[in-house]
Amino acid sequence: MFIDQLIKKIKEKKNPSVVGLDPRIEFVPQFIKDKYTEMYKTENKSAAYAMLEYNKFIIDAIKDIVPCVKPQIAFYEAYGIEGLEVFKETVKYAKENGLLVLADVKRGDIGSTAKAYAQAYLGGCFIEVDSITVNPYLGEDSITPFTEYCDLNKGIFILAKTSNKSSEDLQDLISEDKRIYEIVAEHIKKWGEKYIGDNGYSSVGAVIGATYPEVMKRLREVMKNAYFLVPGYGAQGGTALDVVHSFNEDGLGAIINSSRGIIAAHLKDKYKDKYKDEEFYLAIRQAAIEMRDDINNALEKNNKLYY
Amino acid sequence: MFIDQLIKKIKEKKNPSVVGLDPRIEFVPQFIKDKYTEMYKTENKSAAYAMLEYNKFIIDAIKDIVPCVKPQIAFYEAYGIEGLEVFKETVKYAKENGLLVLADVKRGDIGSTAKAYAQAYLGGCFIEVDSITVNPYLGEDSITPFTEYCDLNKGIFILAKTSNKSSEDLQDLISEDKRIYEIVAEHIKKWGEKYIGDNGYSSVGAVIGATYPEVMKRLREVMKNAYFLVPGYGAQGGTALDVVHSFNEDGLGAIINSSRGIIAAHLKDKYKDKYKDEEFYLAIRQAAIEMRDDINNALEKNNKLYY
Repeated sequence: MFIDQLIKKIKEKKNPSVVGLDPRIEFVPQFIKDKYTEMYKTENKSAAYAMLEYNKFIIDAIKDIVPCVKPQIAFYEAYGIEGLEVFKETVKYAKENGLLVLADVKRGDIGSTAKAYAQAYLGGCFIEVDSITVNPYLGEDSITPFTEYCDLNKGIFILAKTSNKSSEDLQDLISEDKRIYEIVAEHIKKWGEKYIGDNGYSSVGAVIGATYPEVMKRLREVMKNAYFLVPGYGAQGGTALDVVHSFNEDGLGAIINSSRGIIAAHLKDKYKDKYKDEEFYLAIRQAAIEMRDDINNALEKNNKLYY
Repeated sequence: MFIDQLIKKIKEKKNPSVVGLDPRIEFVPQFIKDKYTEMYKTENKSAAYAMLEYNKFIIDAIKDIVPCVKPQIAFYEAYGIEGLEVFKETVKYAKENGLLVLADVKRGDIGSTAKAYAQAYLGGCFIEVDSITVNPYLGEDSITPFTEYCDLNKGIFILAKTSNKSSEDLQDLISEDKRIYEIVAEHIKKWGEKYIGDNGYSSVGAVIGATYPEVMKRLREVMKNAYFLVPGYGAQGGTALDVVHSFNEDGLGAIINSSRGIIAAHLKDKYKDKYKDEEFYLAIRQAAIEMRDDINNALEKNNKLYY
């Protein structure tokens, strides 16, 4: 089962965090950009391949620290065909380096269309990743084509409560005394029941923003067996103390994401004078280590440290 | 404004319908498949390029009949990089032939990520289409990056009530005496107010399934100025009498989609003996004409025919 593979990697690395590979050209160090500007004539291609090399630097810098990476496909689609080639190469490189890949694609469509998306990302027709994120707005028949891949060692994380401010517009509405995100959580629990692995967790997980710790606490009760993929730590304002609520008492149950906070660490005042130019990846490595330690310390204080 | 361009094309063609370019290899006539199997060594590439030729046949067959086409990107993503090249070529060919392109991508993500998607599809960083479909689950700050392009002659259609059975799981829930799809409709109305064109309609429209005519009637009242993109006619079970409710009294306000019903017409009993092999596109043309006439007849009966 996907979820057991994920838990195994988390235990091996003693780290329940994931780095979001959301490259932007302004994060890429100048020496890499210069190389690709010379190499390729079109701006799009040189930018895309500069981002690939940057991604490889990041993966090399963190591969012994984190269990997985989370590439956000939007930042690759924004560079068109070349960007999607780079998405594919990034996934391949991450897997070759022993990392699981949780692709953040947030797809969601009616059954026959959802099946095409599932084939693309979980069936390997485009690129084979270990799990993807999925949008629940279209309901169960839009989810089943994805969950069916859980029997084939794949996983999905369904949006319940997202990290952004406007998540309140729909997700916080109350229907029969429950918030919409609670009702989605109950569905996620039900949809995941068939796919519970050796550790008691399901390969059907949930996306719950770190920016709403009280919601996280509540949803942790609703879906005991669901793994939470938690965005919003770091740059978006979620703290280690906030995300502690996403873990169960057994110290498992959540994986915390940071994107900009890690992959743009070399641009932060804290690191930029210490690690210059070609050493930028050391800032990224340092930020990934600090995130791991920050979360593990908070877990320890709350008697939730697993390892 | 996008919406005025759309209305102009609808008036020119006297046709408020759109053909969904959702190619599947089993729809592609054998003579096209054979050609590409010989041409390319990999199965993926030969399938993708066979679908491109098939799409071009369809576009040639319907370009004087319909105002626009709606390619569903999932069916291209399922063929990976080659599939996405074909998506791009299909969009290009449709535009060269005077058709508007409503890309069905159903993207939705937090603000910074939504911006990357908007740049990809509305800003032309991947491919420049005229409008895209968007998922509302993440709320207003996930929508704004798309609506901002409405000032640049682009449009969006936001999912309100989708055509599938399980749309009831979330979209039909009741909050403060309103269905979720009604609340979404009120948001769509509000988000679209800034982008109302010369014909009194907004470039921010709504996706409303043909399979729920009563809902359509209700939502028509809630969002007078929103154009409805209506899937579910034909193969999914919606009839011309059902979709009449999606039009305003002025005979405008909706564009009805059919995908399989048109692009796989040559496989239907009704046409398959009449139009054989190389003549398959005549079946597609005939189905597109029949759909146009079917909808226009229903509109006429209800005193809603515009032209």
